Amino acid sequence: MKKAKKKINAAILVIGNEILSGRTQDLNVSFISNWLNFKCGIKVEEVRIVPDIEKKIVFNVLDLSKRFNYVFTTGGIGPTHDDITAKSISKAFKVKYEYHKEAYKILENYYGTKQFNQGRKKMAKMPSRSSLILNPSSAAPGFKIKNVLCMPGVPSILKSMIENSKKYLIKGSTTFSKTVNLYTVESNISSEMKRIQNKFSKNIDIGSYPFFRLGKIGVSVVLRSTNKKKLKLCMTQIKNMVKKKKIKFFK
Amino acid sequence: MKKAKKKINAAILVIGNEILSGRTQDLNVSFISNWLNFKCGIKVEEVRIVPDIEKKIVFNVLDLSKRFNYVFTTGGIGPTHDDITAKSISKAFKVKYEYHKEAYKILENYYGTKQFNQGRKKMAKMPSRSSLILNPSSAAPGFKIKNVLCMPGVPSILKSMIENSKKYLIKGSTTFSKTVNLYTVESNISSEMKRIQNKFSKNIDIGSYPFFRLGKIGVSVVLRSTNKKKLKLCMTQIKNMVKKKKIKFFK
Repeated sequence: MKKAKKKINAAILVIGNEILSGRTQDLNVSFISNWLNFKCGIKVEEVRIVPDIEKKIVFNVLDLSKRFNYVFTTGGIGPTHDDITAKSISKAFKVKYEYHKEAYKILENYYGTKQFNQGRKKMAKMPSRSSLILNPSSAAPGFKIKNVLCMPGVPSILKSMIENSKKYLIKGSTTFSKTVNLYTVESNISSEMKRIQNKFSKNIDIGSYPFFRLGKIGVSVVLRSTNKKKLKLCMTQIKNMVKKKKIKFFK
Repeated sequence: MKKAKKKINAAILVIGNEILSGRTQDLNVSFISNWLNFKCGIKVEEVRIVPDIEKKIVFNVLDLSKRFNYVFTTGGIGPTHDDITAKSISKAFKVKYEYHKEAYKILENYYGTKQFNQGRKKMAKMPSRSSLILNPSSAAPGFKIKNVLCMPGVPSILKSMIENSKKYLIKGSTTFSKTVNLYTVESNISSEMKRIQNKFSKNIDIGSYPFFRLGKIGVSVVLRSTNKKKLKLCMTQIKNMVKKKKIKFFK
């Protein structure tokens, strides 16, 4: 994995009626985001969830691939009629939708010639000149074309494959994060946090998130930055503010 | 709640760095989608997740509010510096960002005059002429302006409020859903499912979703439609296909 000094960003395009209908709880966005952030120094800046409709996939793939360094798609690369991601992306980039020789071999080998039916063969069809993202758990590979990386929707399979997408990515500056959990409510520290955020507006994102745990109310203050020194300095100021206000730390 | 015979759709705009960074697992999309689908007959057709950046919120609120009957936003209506949803939506619709009298009273009453500090007062600031979505659990109301309904990001609070947004919605035709769980893999039924989907292409969406349960592999076939009769007919054909192929039903 090559390393760039600049910031590298990405978008995620979740493809699937089952997520939009509420039937299935998406788990891939948080997994991919964490992996990209902490393993690759790539910041996810937008997510979209769209249905299994070709024109919607075409529009969003083109729009996101222009605006972000990378686009990860999830879902729609299986064997059934509603799996239209590969075909739609071929259309988006105006390339042929055809059998990928290596993918075909992998799948033929995995299923055996007799069991290699139409549905399974479909999983070897991709946009022309795609590169494969190998799948160690269930064989059917994902693929990469231009700056778009296509992954399956089943979380366990996606997880088993994600490391194989790394070779196509350029590493950005790693984002570091520090969290402090406080025994307070947001409105009790909002003006002080605003003051500190303004002081560090160039380098640090400060987020505050209320939580309820074992019947107690608290706030997580999360600092994120690519600059470790500024992060430490900012955390010191947050902690000083907390002590001054006699707020207890949550353990 | 008035009822329309036509299809009514919606988009969800999730606002929050914590979702994009992978720190927080979003739970609101599936909750809102289920509620809109089954309680209101409103179909969620797109979801976007964007960071706490004004111009991104402005752009996406305007874009989605033009293209869908309703837009639900989640997040960014709390008391801290990173809660910028209300201000950004005021900007999007070119209206004043100001205290909502009723919201101000509700919050003043809830906190008491002494405890009603700047952060808490901020939660009463909204786009001019917003209508309130009352919050029975923690007082700070959501609001509705034009076709945009703004909800908090904390799932338990959002859940407690959702019924109070119903009065602003027109009910669409209810989507019904039927599921059958099969002891098979997707590629074993993909060509037959495609044939059945083509026969019912106008009325029914057929989705197929692999699952792993207690060490066994299966496929959920899900039919969705606003037409109950066609749904029944389609399910009969699916079940006949399943029997013909000697596939067992998962219990």
